[in-house]
Amino acid sequence: MPNAFVAGQGNLSEHEEAMVARRANVLGPAYRLMYETPLHLVRGEGVWLYDQAGRAYLDAYNNVTSLGHCHPRIVAAIREQVGILATNTRYMHDLILDYAEQLVATFPNELSQVMFACTGSEANDLAVRIAKAYTGGTGIIVTENAYHGITETVAAFSPSLGPAVDLGAHVRTIAAPAAYHASDSDVAATFKRNVEAAIADLKRHGIKPAVLIADTLFSSDGVLPEPKGFLAGAVEAIHAAGGLFIADEVQPGFARTGEAMWGFQRHGIVPDLATLGKPMGNGHPVSAVVMRPEVCDEFGRMARYFNTFGGNAVSCAAAMAVLRTIEEERLMANCQSVGAYLAEGIRALAGDCEALGDVRGAGLFIGAEFVTDRASKAPDRVRAGKVVNAMRDRGVLISVTGRFHNSLKIRPPLIFTKDHADHFVAVMKEALAATA
Amino acid sequence: MPNAFVAGQGNLSEHEEAMVARRANVLGPAYRLMYETPLHLVRGEGVWLYDQAGRAYLDAYNNVTSLGHCHPRIVAAIREQVGILATNTRYMHDLILDYAEQLVATFPNELSQVMFACTGSEANDLAVRIAKAYTGGTGIIVTENAYHGITETVAAFSPSLGPAVDLGAHVRTIAAPAAYHASDSDVAATFKRNVEAAIADLKRHGIKPAVLIADTLFSSDGVLPEPKGFLAGAVEAIHAAGGLFIADEVQPGFARTGEAMWGFQRHGIVPDLATLGKPMGNGHPVSAVVMRPEVCDEFGRMARYFNTFGGNAVSCAAAMAVLRTIEEERLMANCQSVGAYLAEGIRALAGDCEALGDVRGAGLFIGAEFVTDRASKAPDRVRAGKVVNAMRDRGVLISVTGRFHNSLKIRPPLIFTKDHADHFVAVMKEALAATA
Repeated sequence: MPNAFVAGQGNLSEHEEAMVARRANVLGPAYRLMYETPLHLVRGEGVWLYDQAGRAYLDAYNNVTSLGHCHPRIVAAIREQVGILATNTRYMHDLILDYAEQLVATFPNELSQVMFACTGSEANDLAVRIAKAYTGGTGIIVTENAYHGITETVAAFSPSLGPAVDLGAHVRTIAAPAAYHASDSDVAATFKRNVEAAIADLKRHGIKPAVLIADTLFSSDGVLPEPKGFLAGAVEAIHAAGGLFIADEVQPGFARTGEAMWGFQRHGIVPDLATLGKPMGNGHPVSAVVMRPEVCDEFGRMARYFNTFGGNAVSCAAAMAVLRTIEEERLMANCQSVGAYLAEGIRALAGDCEALGDVRGAGLFIGAEFVTDRASKAPDRVRAGKVVNAMRDRGVLISVTGRFHNSLKIRPPLIFTKDHADHFVAVMKEALAATA
Repeated sequence: MPNAFVAGQGNLSEHEEAMVARRANVLGPAYRLMYETPLHLVRGEGVWLYDQAGRAYLDAYNNVTSLGHCHPRIVAAIREQVGILATNTRYMHDLILDYAEQLVATFPNELSQVMFACTGSEANDLAVRIAKAYTGGTGIIVTENAYHGITETVAAFSPSLGPAVDLGAHVRTIAAPAAYHASDSDVAATFKRNVEAAIADLKRHGIKPAVLIADTLFSSDGVLPEPKGFLAGAVEAIHAAGGLFIADEVQPGFARTGEAMWGFQRHGIVPDLATLGKPMGNGHPVSAVVMRPEVCDEFGRMARYFNTFGGNAVSCAAAMAVLRTIEEERLMANCQSVGAYLAEGIRALAGDCEALGDVRGAGLFIGAEFVTDRASKAPDRVRAGKVVNAMRDRGVLISVTGRFHNSLKIRPPLIFTKDHADHFVAVMKEALAATA
């Protein structure tokens, strides 16, 4: 994992060293902590996280709590419903219907049905099951550092998990649509050609293509928002091969891009299925698959679907409060204006920093790529990691992304203000100077 | 699905018919409602659920809310933590460590590590990934009507999902250990032989056995608790073949059997991995895999694991409150005594009801099997379904289980009292008379 703590290093207190040892003992070796010196957090409020010593950290990373930590409206909604009822979809309940209808109303008309689960992994797992049943195919195409989740099925098409997690024999990876590194100016045409080549290779191996799945901001490939519309040709290509396009909106969704509620809308396309997760309940475990009804008709009738906790009343109450808060507090507009302001501030820092090769983003999701020099554009993961940790030491939280771990992943809550952005840029300026 | 509502039938109000139509429209065809006339629930408290009209139903079915609906201690724990912090395992937090240590302390010493997810499906998916990595095998053995979850991987070894969901080519099903139907008296020896035959068949097809997985009460195979200890030989057999045994404790766990915290303990065995879910947070989405450290050592170091919501502070607070409440309110002892009392009351009804062929259970998990006659023991699913719906109409909630859907699945909350049991038996007596 990029930006992972290495045990025995870091500047931890005795109590925290003991916590690290307890983690290793009882949680085992599979868990990772972030930062050279991990954080021991005890409280969150709005854009701020607080550690054991009472120190505040500006959270510019956690998009689960996308409306800020402990947002009063979400907290109130959960507190109310948890005392009334939390049962499952085998009984009728008004809240799931009210929420489902309001949620699909934020999508293009074609995407009119929704099914609920608890995690983005479960949503992607279900979406792929549905797509395989509908297409009769099994082939899956993803970008080279994509992350879609951790069920066995989904991990098999999440190359960012690294070489210890095998990709499926039915999976093909293609180069991410990185405009900054494109050898020609036509990112869309190149990306479409890559999808077509993957389709041809699947067929050559006797594998019928089922799915092209993409995070519509390519969050794990380094944050790749531009040029808008570049996904359209790739979607045409998978459709022409009889496959479906799944828009993974777990990270880009719920207004994060500032321009639209859903990342795919920036590309002028309508996916066959869209998967939602992380920020959907502002921290409460809830996820969903939104889809064209025809793709799920046979699967739904024949295979049925029941997720014990998925769509329970508390999850729906939390998710409803999130949706209403985004709308009523006009957070999409805030995301667009503050996001643009923040990106501009970061871009201005590149004037004094040759290593900061590219700053790109949509709304409050910004990638900032470090290179050894601007001519070769060779990745500088060491510098990126140093900047992340220098910012953490100065009280601002971000991490890195991309195949070479050399792009900052900047993803503040939608309630970020220009003052927060100013603070962020000031700290980043210090961190750049300190790591030069 | 057994006991499923058929649209157009049932005795629904105009408003509820509209809800059914809205469900079909926005949730699609994959969702099912329970009962001939489904319930429109609005509130729950303790052992009671309340519908839109204010009618109370004695809940003898939902083991997610295993401590009763809206248990004040769990509600308070969630309400408190949701206002403090709900973030992930890449930061240090005391609560996850405190809970993890207390949870593994309820297991035999060998099972000393735990990993967190959100649903039982995710827990079983992860357990199987770990077991495959550890054994180098892929073969999976399950009972003929087992249910373990709905990720693609887990659905492929959940035969109870029906013929529309393909079993994997690497999956073998074996007869469930049904003492009532056993052709000889040695259930354990027969079950072990069945596992050995499945292992041999896997090997004959070039598939290395990886896993025997069983719900330790065989909840979906009809509730099969006796004779205690019958699992031991089967576990020996899978170990001898180089595979692991996964105890699926999603339904039997957390004191449900009355005799032990975990179902496998009734069998005098120690599994390699145990998976936990449904009642773990009394309705809050949280699940876990508890395991012997050696089985996860390489997987953990190489593949890592991160579940965004898994082990967040709110989930841990809810789960901690559940664990403490079971201990401090001595619910295991209550479960044992009230469970025995309830089973005795139900068994007494068989004196006047030839069709009630067998009543069996452990703690507050009881199966009651309907047969056309006691000599042939042929399944009577029609009668079982009628009894379930007659009880629902009289305000008591249960459902059916088993390959032939002919056993009542009776699974009241652990706070059930003898008065509740008396009420249950009185209503069941009426329902038997009304459906004779």
